[in-house]
Amino acid sequence: MTLWLQFIYKEQTHIGVLNDDIINIYNGDLFNNPLASGETCRLEDVEILMPCRPGKMLALWNNFYSRAEHEGWNIPPEPLYFIKTSNSFNAHLRPIVRPSSYSGPVVFEGELGIVIGKPCSHVCEADAEEHIFGYTCVNDVTAKEILKRDSSFTQWTRAKNFDTFGVIGPYIATGLDVDRLVVQSILDGELLQDYPVTDMVFRPHKLVSMISQDMTLYPGDIIACGTSLNAAAMADGQTIDVSIEGIGVLSNTMTPAG
Amino acid sequence: MTLWLQFIYKEQTHIGVLNDDIINIYNGDLFNNPLASGETCRLEDVEILMPCRPGKMLALWNNFYSRAEHEGWNIPPEPLYFIKTSNSFNAHLRPIVRPSSYSGPVVFEGELGIVIGKPCSHVCEADAEEHIFGYTCVNDVTAKEILKRDSSFTQWTRAKNFDTFGVIGPYIATGLDVDRLVVQSILDGELLQDYPVTDMVFRPHKLVSMISQDMTLYPGDIIACGTSLNAAAMADGQTIDVSIEGIGVLSNTMTPAG
Repeated sequence: MTLWLQFIYKEQTHIGVLNDDIINIYNGDLFNNPLASGETCRLEDVEILMPCRPGKMLALWNNFYSRAEHEGWNIPPEPLYFIKTSNSFNAHLRPIVRPSSYSGPVVFEGELGIVIGKPCSHVCEADAEEHIFGYTCVNDVTAKEILKRDSSFTQWTRAKNFDTFGVIGPYIATGLDVDRLVVQSILDGELLQDYPVTDMVFRPHKLVSMISQDMTLYPGDIIACGTSLNAAAMADGQTIDVSIEGIGVLSNTMTPAG
Repeated sequence: MTLWLQFIYKEQTHIGVLNDDIINIYNGDLFNNPLASGETCRLEDVEILMPCRPGKMLALWNNFYSRAEHEGWNIPPEPLYFIKTSNSFNAHLRPIVRPSSYSGPVVFEGELGIVIGKPCSHVCEADAEEHIFGYTCVNDVTAKEILKRDSSFTQWTRAKNFDTFGVIGPYIATGLDVDRLVVQSILDGELLQDYPVTDMVFRPHKLVSMISQDMTLYPGDIIACGTSLNAAAMADGQTIDVSIEGIGVLSNTMTPAG
């Protein structure tokens, strides 16, 4: 298993591989066979950036059996998804900023993110694996009160896409056994979400295959697999950790509008 | 008034300004004071590309009084919008491709597109003008049968974002009086849409201001202002022209899945 990251070290942006607290610095494109430079630095000396720059992030709704049962939702016959836009993308340890125009609840959703590694169109489920680069943690932040306040049009785009609301990272793990993963969300030290990836209605390989029938996916695009039970609102000053053992802990603090 | 375009000439990508059928070639970034190179070429010798590469395209629903009245929709108190993703973006004269996984109606929607010129966050309506670079034609293509086939979740993202479904161009016009514009959609020579921009519920400056309260807009981002009456399905082989006098004619042909 390999943990990839992108970071600033001595005012330069780099990619690298993390081993314990040492980073091996690589040159080139993360998705096109980057080469080890032979140089290293220490994790504590770098600023972690988003691990990649997705061209698009697709995010699933109603993709967990436990959640569907709890909410009384029907199991969907096909993946139901919305978009997280690039202005929303946000890195590990950066603030999640409350929108100045909004005073309602801002909710975290801890999720597994699939990072695409190769252009991907009309891929069958058996071929999905070779199009997946790896997996990352996602916090799909939501201005919940906006979502349904217009009865004629559910505002997925707006509620999900305030600046800083699409948190990804800190690492992309490759070579994982995805079926063993468990997603945990911890708010100020309290474990609120704790669910296995195997409870998904559409699992990662199926998602990549089915969504690639609709739209071409490109290296760096992310599919956020949806969340399960117990997503909750964050108060200003609270810290939310999305933790997936084998990938890492994505930690951010909710802050008031600037 | 100036018409900007992006094109391939002698295997190189350029930007330029169109005057009649002569293009003045420019160097640099379209949104950062490009410089005239002194060179020219003829429009008939180039391949027109998308006039810019939007980081995101926001697209309005229910933004015309005539349409709302016809459909029995309430006038929304705030802009209601979804996303067109980058894989959907498509240029003048390129085919609109029927998805191989979908046999239902594929509908054109002729729209005015606002092209953002400067980073734009929390902009007031009076300041919107200076953040707008210009205007282009948009064809917001929709796989209509997918939109509402799941009663629990309207599939805006999926129905709107098949590859080739976000057509923009051919030019970006700057220095226009936007209130005088009329959007026409012509299917195989038949005028089907013909509506004034002044019938919008939220007009361009208002849209830029209100959406910039939610999310930062960047140079090249596009806001598609929504469509009015008489959007219709396209049969394979039919050609759809979205025409806005002062901007140009965006022409594409519907083709079967490859």
